[in-house]
Amino acid sequence: MTSTLKRWKLVIEYNGTDYAGFQRQDNVTTVQGVLESALYNFCQKDIKITVAGRTDAGVHAFGQVAHLDLDYGDREISGFELAKAINAHMVDHPISVIDVQEVSEDFHARFGAKTKLYAYKILNRPHRPALQKDLAWWIKRPLNIEKMRTATSHLLGKHDFSTFRAAECQANSPIRTIDNIEISSTKILGGYDINIAVTGKSFLHHQVRNIVGTLSLVGEGKWQPDDVKAALKAKDRKVGGPTAPASGLYLVNIDYDEEKA
Amino acid sequence: MTSTLKRWKLVIEYNGTDYAGFQRQDNVTTVQGVLESALYNFCQKDIKITVAGRTDAGVHAFGQVAHLDLDYGDREISGFELAKAINAHMVDHPISVIDVQEVSEDFHARFGAKTKLYAYKILNRPHRPALQKDLAWWIKRPLNIEKMRTATSHLLGKHDFSTFRAAECQANSPIRTIDNIEISSTKILGGYDINIAVTGKSFLHHQVRNIVGTLSLVGEGKWQPDDVKAALKAKDRKVGGPTAPASGLYLVNIDYDEEKA
Repeated sequence: MTSTLKRWKLVIEYNGTDYAGFQRQDNVTTVQGVLESALYNFCQKDIKITVAGRTDAGVHAFGQVAHLDLDYGDREISGFELAKAINAHMVDHPISVIDVQEVSEDFHARFGAKTKLYAYKILNRPHRPALQKDLAWWIKRPLNIEKMRTATSHLLGKHDFSTFRAAECQANSPIRTIDNIEISSTKILGGYDINIAVTGKSFLHHQVRNIVGTLSLVGEGKWQPDDVKAALKAKDRKVGGPTAPASGLYLVNIDYDEEKA
Repeated sequence: MTSTLKRWKLVIEYNGTDYAGFQRQDNVTTVQGVLESALYNFCQKDIKITVAGRTDAGVHAFGQVAHLDLDYGDREISGFELAKAINAHMVDHPISVIDVQEVSEDFHARFGAKTKLYAYKILNRPHRPALQKDLAWWIKRPLNIEKMRTATSHLLGKHDFSTFRAAECQANSPIRTIDNIEISSTKILGGYDINIAVTGKSFLHHQVRNIVGTLSLVGEGKWQPDDVKAALKAKDRKVGGPTAPASGLYLVNIDYDEEKA
């Protein structure tokens, strides 16, 4: 039997509502746990996957990325077949491997990520969500989108984001660079769908949710846009706004260097 | 105690996945059953609601409409309070009353409907849905949208729609008028989100799902657009395409005469 160890890049979509986050843990169901069980059931080997961004409990993904190394013996398998096989072993889960590509052995889902795009969805209307239950943050009071947009200008670029960093964050440095924040608002029956898209190379733990929680204060008129600038400068989590709920957060897309991915 | 019988128009959003359709039935959970129980728990009266369109099991709504008559005694209640009260009595359900307006006593949710807009959502990609589980029809093979659009032209206007009518349909006549069919396709990671919007005054039972099932044959290349014209002319359900699954169908909006609504 010939060894055919190959590295594969997986793109994964999931509804995070019923999972204790991405990362495998004992005694709870996680997205990684479901994926690795499916892999085991497919090829009878313990295959560990390495993920780009370990999302928290309740956070969703349209395009999470992971890689894995698989020695499939002397049989050839395509990316399409591998995705189909993994999906076939987790049919009861709202988790789907939507793309698999063979990548070079120096591709790394986490360290190779160039840009990540997160989206945060807010349902802004007086009455509670039905179709978006667990899929958005419900805010009853009308939000002033223009003021929220003005506030985001203070957060763009390279800053010490300690004000927006979870206490349990394990990053070495609170310095991060936000490339773009875009807020769109779409009229729907009874209110507005608001989408906050945030792009950067990497983020601190809870950074996007803490930014959105703070922007919501501006939208509700409790803060002025300049208060966000002052909060950022304070470099102190205690002066930042609340952490927005996990249910509104989506890991949308991750870009890599073309030659490796 | 003064009588203050008022007629109210309700706009209702729901995820139909876990319900045996809209209409109240014995021994199963229906959207109407949940709403009427909530009304009973709110005002201790048996209030019957009259709905615009009785959606089937698994069909969703962004903007279902119903009306009800409520004598709330000598207390004043606003539409906002009524919506909030109903929602408070069905918090565990993905059903939400998103708007309530007082209407004239001759407003009728069903008979007064001028135009209904349904949307049918297809997830067109090789790998199965995660975030859209139960919320779209998953079609694996790539659909030819242009050919589907050409096919829809044969269905516009007033026709005998017997080919697209469920056997159990209780309408007096198979004649219906379709005002518009619009198909949009949006690129997403790993495939396309396809939306088919159908507008008309009223529809036969399963008409939209039977049309979508037939259009899918055109999209997959099994039928040519002109085959849809021939099928329509045959006035025979047996020559039509399959019934598309309930999970992709949404009752989006219903318009009424301004003066009554």
